[in-house]
Amino acid sequence: MILNVIKIGGNVIDNQGKLQSFLEKFSSLEGPKILIHGGGKIATKTAEKLGITTQMVDGRRITDEPMRDVVLMVYGGLVNKLIVAFLQAKNCNALGLSGADGAAILAKKRPVKTIDYGFVGDIEKVNDGFIENILNLDIAPVFCPLTFDTSGNMLNTNADTQASAIAVAMSKRYTVNLVYCFEKKGVLEDAENENTVIPEIRPDLYQKLKTNGKIFAGMIPKLDNAFAALHQGVSKVIICEAEEILIAIQNKNSGTQILL
Amino acid sequence: MILNVIKIGGNVIDNQGKLQSFLEKFSSLEGPKILIHGGGKIATKTAEKLGITTQMVDGRRITDEPMRDVVLMVYGGLVNKLIVAFLQAKNCNALGLSGADGAAILAKKRPVKTIDYGFVGDIEKVNDGFIENILNLDIAPVFCPLTFDTSGNMLNTNADTQASAIAVAMSKRYTVNLVYCFEKKGVLEDAENENTVIPEIRPDLYQKLKTNGKIFAGMIPKLDNAFAALHQGVSKVIICEAEEILIAIQNKNSGTQILL
Repeated sequence: MILNVIKIGGNVIDNQGKLQSFLEKFSSLEGPKILIHGGGKIATKTAEKLGITTQMVDGRRITDEPMRDVVLMVYGGLVNKLIVAFLQAKNCNALGLSGADGAAILAKKRPVKTIDYGFVGDIEKVNDGFIENILNLDIAPVFCPLTFDTSGNMLNTNADTQASAIAVAMSKRYTVNLVYCFEKKGVLEDAENENTVIPEIRPDLYQKLKTNGKIFAGMIPKLDNAFAALHQGVSKVIICEAEEILIAIQNKNSGTQILL
Repeated sequence: MILNVIKIGGNVIDNQGKLQSFLEKFSSLEGPKILIHGGGKIATKTAEKLGITTQMVDGRRITDEPMRDVVLMVYGGLVNKLIVAFLQAKNCNALGLSGADGAAILAKKRPVKTIDYGFVGDIEKVNDGFIENILNLDIAPVFCPLTFDTSGNMLNTNADTQASAIAVAMSKRYTVNLVYCFEKKGVLEDAENENTVIPEIRPDLYQKLKTNGKIFAGMIPKLDNAFAALHQGVSKVIICEAEEILIAIQNKNSGTQILL
C-alpha cells in the first residue's frame, strides 16, 4: 500500500489562507497519510513577544530552556492543534503527535562540541509499529517537529529531517512517497524563474546540476536528504508547491520527482 | 477491568516537585489509566507575559482569540508535552491528546447569553471507541482541557468536567474509578483542618453535610459533579491528595471515597 509522508514548510504555515487551502487538499488525499509541520516563524514571533531572543546557527535554532518552552507551546500546542481541528472539520480524522507521544520518535540530545544547541534532538529511532497502529485506525498522524529522549527531555528537531526519518522507518511496511511541500513550484533550474521546474532528478542529473552550479545553497542539503531517504527504502521523493500537492502526487505534471 | 480516570489539579501542576512526585506514582499504577490535567495558573502567567489580560467569570476563563492561542500553547503544548516526556522517562507509555486528536471529545461552542465566554466548549460526545483503542495499545492517554467543534474551532473546556465526561463514557466499557487529585487530603469536615478528612460520602451524608454548612463554596459543584458521574455509570469517585493517589485508589485509608 502507498503511504504519503508529507512535510509542509514554514512559509505556508505562516499564511492562513495558503495553509487552509493545503489542508483541504491533504484531507481529500486517499489512503494512509502522515503530515509533518514546522512553525519556526511563529516561534520566532512568539519568542519576541515574550522578550526571548532567537539565535540561529547554520539555520538551526539555539534551544535553551526558555526557547524550548516556546517551541513546545508553538509547535506542540498552537500550530499542531489548529491544524488538527481544521482537518477534523474537513472530515479527515487527524491525531497531533510530538515524538514523545506514544514514544513515536526517540532522539538524543545533541552533544555540545563547539556550539551548545541546547534542547535539540538527533533522531535515534522511529516507532513504526505505533505509527502503523494509528494509520490502521484510519487516522492521519500530524507530527510537530519535537522529539524526546530517555531522560524525559522534550527536544527540538528539524522538521525536514523528521519527515525523512519517518518515511524511511515506514518504508519497511509501506511503499512510501516522501513529499516536501513549500512555496515554490519545485526544484528550479533558474532559482529566479518559477517556469524552470526540473520535472525529474536522478543521481546522474543531480551530479551535473551541482557541478554546473544550477543547484546550490539550501537546496543541496534538501536533495542530499532526499537521496539518502531513497537509498534507505523510500520509493519516491517529491518536492512541490503546497497548492499542487494532489497533482504532484498523482502524476508528473507538477513539482520535481526525485528517484534513484 | 478497572480503569482509573485521574484528574490532576492546577496547584499541583504549578509545583514541579509535586507534579513529578505525582507522575512517578501515576506511572507505577497498574492497569489501564487516563490522566487529565489543567494548567490555568501557567496560562494566566503566560498571558500576562504576552500582555494579554485574564478575565474570569464564575471561575471560568473568558477565552477570546488571543486567550485561545494562549491555552492552546500552554495546555496543548507546554504542560501536556512536559508531562508526556516525564512519563515516558518513567517507563509509562503516554500519549498527549486534546479533544480534537482522534476526534476524542467533540464539544459545542457555548452560546452567548449574558456573557460571551468566547472559545469555550461544552462537551457533546466522548469517542470511547478511540480511547479504548489507545488503551488497548497499553498507552495512557494524557488529556489537556481542550476540545473541538465541527467547524474546526479549538475550545477551552473545564478539566474537572472533561474528566467526568471521559469517566462516564468509558464506564460502558470498564469499571471506572474517577479520581480527583489536588493539594488537600480529601473532602474536609473542617476546611481549615487537614485532619478532618471524611473517608466516605454517600447521598444521605452529603445532604446532611450541605444542610449543616460543613460543605460549601467550591466543593459543592465538585461533589454534585461526582454524584452525577456515579448516576451515569462511574463506579466510584475519589477525592484525594496527589501524593497519596496510590493509597487512595488501593484502599480506604486516604482521601474521600464518594459512592451511591
